[in-house]
Amino acid sequence: MGVSKTHPSSEAMIAVERGYPLYIADLSVKPAFEKAGIPVAGSVWDMIGQADIVVDATPAGIGAKNKPLYERAGVKAIFEGGEKHETAGFSFNAHSNYKDAIGRQFIRVVSCNTTALCRIIHAMDQEYGIDSVDAVLVRRSSDPGEIKKGPVDAIVLQPVSLPSHQGPDVMTVLPHISISTMAMTVPTTFMHMHALVMRLKKEARKERIVEIIGKHSRMGLVKSKTGISSTAELMEYMRDMGRPRADLWENGIYEESISIQGKYLRLFQAVHQEAIVVMETVDAIRAASGTVSDPEVSIRKTNSAMGLVAIG
Amino acid sequence: MGVSKTHPSSEAMIAVERGYPLYIADLSVKPAFEKAGIPVAGSVWDMIGQADIVVDATPAGIGAKNKPLYERAGVKAIFEGGEKHETAGFSFNAHSNYKDAIGRQFIRVVSCNTTALCRIIHAMDQEYGIDSVDAVLVRRSSDPGEIKKGPVDAIVLQPVSLPSHQGPDVMTVLPHISISTMAMTVPTTFMHMHALVMRLKKEARKERIVEIIGKHSRMGLVKSKTGISSTAELMEYMRDMGRPRADLWENGIYEESISIQGKYLRLFQAVHQEAIVVMETVDAIRAASGTVSDPEVSIRKTNSAMGLVAIG
Amino acid sequence: MGVSKTHPSSEAMIAVERGYPLYIADLSVKPAFEKAGIPVAGSVWDMIGQADIVVDATPAGIGAKNKPLYERAGVKAIFEGGEKHETAGFSFNAHSNYKDAIGRQFIRVVSCNTTALCRIIHAMDQEYGIDSVDAVLVRRSSDPGEIKKGPVDAIVLQPVSLPSHQGPDVMTVLPHISISTMAMTVPTTFMHMHALVMRLKKEARKERIVEIIGKHSRMGLVKSKTGISSTAELMEYMRDMGRPRADLWENGIYEESISIQGKYLRLFQAVHQEAIVVMETVDAIRAASGTVSDPEVSIRKTNSAMGLVAIG
Amino acid sequence: MGVSKTHPSSEAMIAVERGYPLYIADLSVKPAFEKAGIPVAGSVWDMIGQADIVVDATPAGIGAKNKPLYERAGVKAIFEGGEKHETAGFSFNAHSNYKDAIGRQFIRVVSCNTTALCRIIHAMDQEYGIDSVDAVLVRRSSDPGEIKKGPVDAIVLQPVSLPSHQGPDVMTVLPHISISTMAMTVPTTFMHMHALVMRLKKEARKERIVEIIGKHSRMGLVKSKTGISSTAELMEYMRDMGRPRADLWENGIYEESISIQGKYLRLFQAVHQEAIVVMETVDAIRAASGTVSDPEVSIRKTNSAMGLVAIG
Repeated sequence: MGVSKTHPSSEAMIAVERGYPLYIADLSVKPAFEKAGIPVAGSVWDMIGQADIVVDATPAGIGAKNKPLYERAGVKAIFEGGEKHETAGFSFNAHSNYKDAIGRQFIRVVSCNTTALCRIIHAMDQEYGIDSVDAVLVRRSSDPGEIKKGPVDAIVLQPVSLPSHQGPDVMTVLPHISISTMAMTVPTTFMHMHALVMRLKKEARKERIVEIIGKHSRMGLVKSKTGISSTAELMEYMRDMGRPRADLWENGIYEESISIQGKYLRLFQAVHQEAIVVMETVDAIRAASGTVSDPEVSIRKTNSAMGLVAIG
Repeated sequence: MGVSKTHPSSEAMIAVERGYPLYIADLSVKPAFEKAGIPVAGSVWDMIGQADIVVDATPAGIGAKNKPLYERAGVKAIFEGGEKHETAGFSFNAHSNYKDAIGRQFIRVVSCNTTALCRIIHAMDQEYGIDSVDAVLVRRSSDPGEIKKGPVDAIVLQPVSLPSHQGPDVMTVLPHISISTMAMTVPTTFMHMHALVMRLKKEARKERIVEIIGKHSRMGLVKSKTGISSTAELMEYMRDMGRPRADLWENGIYEESISIQGKYLRLFQAVHQEAIVVMETVDAIRAASGTVSDPEVSIRKTNSAMGLVAIG
Repeated sequence: MGVSKTHPSSEAMIAVERGYPLYIADLSVKPAFEKAGIPVAGSVWDMIGQADIVVDATPAGIGAKNKPLYERAGVKAIFEGGEKHETAGFSFNAHSNYKDAIGRQFIRVVSCNTTALCRIIHAMDQEYGIDSVDAVLVRRSSDPGEIKKGPVDAIVLQPVSLPSHQGPDVMTVLPHISISTMAMTVPTTFMHMHALVMRLKKEARKERIVEIIGKHSRMGLVKSKTGISSTAELMEYMRDMGRPRADLWENGIYEESISIQGKYLRLFQAVHQEAIVVMETVDAIRAASGTVSDPEVSIRKTNSAMGLVAIG
Repeated sequence: MGVSKTHPSSEAMIAVERGYPLYIADLSVKPAFEKAGIPVAGSVWDMIGQADIVVDATPAGIGAKNKPLYERAGVKAIFEGGEKHETAGFSFNAHSNYKDAIGRQFIRVVSCNTTALCRIIHAMDQEYGIDSVDAVLVRRSSDPGEIKKGPVDAIVLQPVSLPSHQGPDVMTVLPHISISTMAMTVPTTFMHMHALVMRLKKEARKERIVEIIGKHSRMGLVKSKTGISSTAELMEYMRDMGRPRADLWENGIYEESISIQGKYLRLFQAVHQEAIVVMETVDAIRAASGTVSDPEVSIRKTNSAMGLVAIG
């Protein structure tokens, strides 16, 4: 097991402190690591040579360039949502299509927004059937530790033209779902927020929907009695619960927002961009390696390894 | 003509510099104004005694308390969107129901968000008929000159429960429209953004919708060739155009976002919360006074007085 | 041991989950707690009756109102920086005046900004003597979990008039220090930043200052090799280190900023407003109870209970 | 007279609407301009061939590359603060060194922060003499119309190492002044804020300092009676005064902050990064062309052309 970084940083320091050997892509920067007191175990290619599965969390588009190397080395690879569906040929969401992923060489874990959409859409589709979905995604602009990206004071349409890519991306996992998404970016670092309008095939009752979400292994209810009405308070609740890095691995669905009008279901859900795909990536490794064949077994293993206990 | 303020401020100073007599509600604070070098013309009740029409832009709920005074003084009053529909008994949008407002004693000009929704919904309804509307309102948290209100780093559901009040509020102006709204607040000072999904009764063509908006006297196209993709760039464009206070009085509809899928029309529109109801308030005064009976004549008069020239 | 809250909230839920009995000031709101499933152990007065020491972390000014109750009950009390020096009659910083605090009935732990100033000023004063200090405090506007306070897009002078209160407040702990402070508030939730200019009585060498800070039990060096240049990256580093709530209990002094010019010492330090006084409060409890007489023994006990390991 | 842009944009559209011929550096992008309906008058080199003076407001470092072209064409050029002092060989501030600029081929107008520092320092130096200056610059992160640059939620030290470049930069204009600066960037779009500590050679009285600033042709007092305590409210005041683009061309010095303690003068000043160097650039053109020899005559001409009337 090893970690790869491109330049010396606090993240590289922490990986080494925790006992992970550190590999670098470009051995010519090795002196810079050593000057900073960070030992280098070898090149990334050394690491790949010893690995069975690589998790490629490189910036968008680099994964596609790395794929031939993985093919040559005969290793399996998990790509992230910044890569195109075509790079892996298979897009993954644990609850939606774990079984189809078993034993594959290449698996793409879809992005945080797409993952959260797949979870709730798949669960509602199983119970009621879905006619169509409209989702407005209000995205955080940068992660809490980032200082370069803006905007500072703007709502940015990303993109202006419709639909945004997340709608079609859901359909790489759930091809039969008709969905349209509109996306914008706002100056906040804590979580995305989704406003969801789903047209179901059957009328639903709020109590039953609350029950489905409450029992789901990757969705959580933000209960009314917590008084939480925002992304920031929800993140604070995770800090108070003592979760590592204040991670919210589940869809955070605001119980009070769940609303039924005829066949229309509307709700708000918060999506923690830093946390949500960590879980799916672990499941994808398990599916690729073929060690666990039952999705719920894998999901429960992952949840329990991370220490997930129900919110709300 | 006079202006009323509650305490000495830069706004009071500017009103006086521009030659408006300044009235105050509480004469006991007169010495504070005089110490700051701001002459006071009298009490608010002096002002009302001399007025034909009062524009009551007091904080939400105060208008309802003032109403009996206007009734006693026999003056007409224009209330703003912070007041309930019941206070005036009539909710106003110039394009939607100007004629029904003519000669009324009390008129409520609906809020900036509701005004912008009424403009586009009424225009589409005239041309195509509307089955239903879903709107997600991403609201600015404070005006550029405000320093107390947050949030600083959060997306806040306002309210968590659905629908938000703007949907029912549209129906005080356009009672036959079926609309549901979801609202949140984000840390920005420049304009609200609406993500709109309208189910029309007939299929539409984008070219025709672009034409309707382009010709509308209170909606403007944010054209693709400007490269504008946000609220901030749109505000900057207004500054560069030399508009007073960088005001955008029109719905700012992003041309590139207008999208047709079967009977569904989707688009983004920016709403300048500081500017948009100024225009409707002037029209409401004209309607209440009964001086102009044709809505488009009033609208054009107001537009030309403010110096509106087409954006985009 | 017990916790007191005024209304049901996620914080109340977590206190109870962790096994702390929950007391409330106003027993008439007990049904609201019970409706939310949060058991109430009794009134705040029950709690005080059983306590030896109360930590009064009520909003600014409430502590002064509570003081007669503590006097009547004969309990010791620790007040926080929102209370005036006069309320306790003694203002506390562990490194600066622990010994003078031993056995006192009332101790005021100074605010986060004042605490951080006392730590670095006292340490430099011990080594070099100090002629005068100028500090510019750039304050975060709200904590990460707060959603009401702004500003959203402004730098606010708080106060406009000089000096700000923190300079005189340092002198309640270190009366012989000549210090002037200027304070402003900016739209961020992560930590305050201090720009410090100290005129020392003797010339200093950077190496020695780095050494003093590196060995100090409540100050930490943000080392150059981490590449950290901001509050946000520093907070992220604490998350990556696995600190509870990402707390930075030490002054975070940027090694690269430490600069000597003749007798002038200049540097930047980050101050985590949520974390820094937690440590001093624990020491103040120990001093008040008289169980530990050596400051460094108390400080090390507190540090090790919280799990403090050196940053950088 | 002409304007140059690199790609079609709302700014290019507005330049053309106002009747300025538009020149482009790279004629191969001419079709893109024409497709957007923006006529191109020719290449930048055509424009330079017809010009006497060029104002080079290109991004930092490009001016140095353009200089040989201006030398070859025999035109004068005004560079901005992004260029190094050496590029022009002369750094300019109207009040500080206008006379030395008369007739020069190359003049560098220093940056907004340096300009504002020169104005107040030069004025205090003329009256009292200055021993040393410490300035903490809290900088806005992006202009209101920018959407890419952050941070969103951070205070960033720029740079971490001391002093920041503005101190030495003041000394390119006022070589005898001893000054040290510390700079940070915060998430706001409206104006920089300077916290200034000046050690004067003589004791001063606040009344006299208020008088000097009040009479200065490029500094303005933000008077206490306006109630303004922030950058945002000051910007709003400029909007209410009807200034074009809400520009604040003067140093905005907070009257209430001006504070004397022995020989120390402390104060806060706001600096509108978009506006302040526009004035100095116009004066620099006049100095380079040699048409006006008296600085105050040039300054008054520029002020009156922009419509400057005293704030406060």
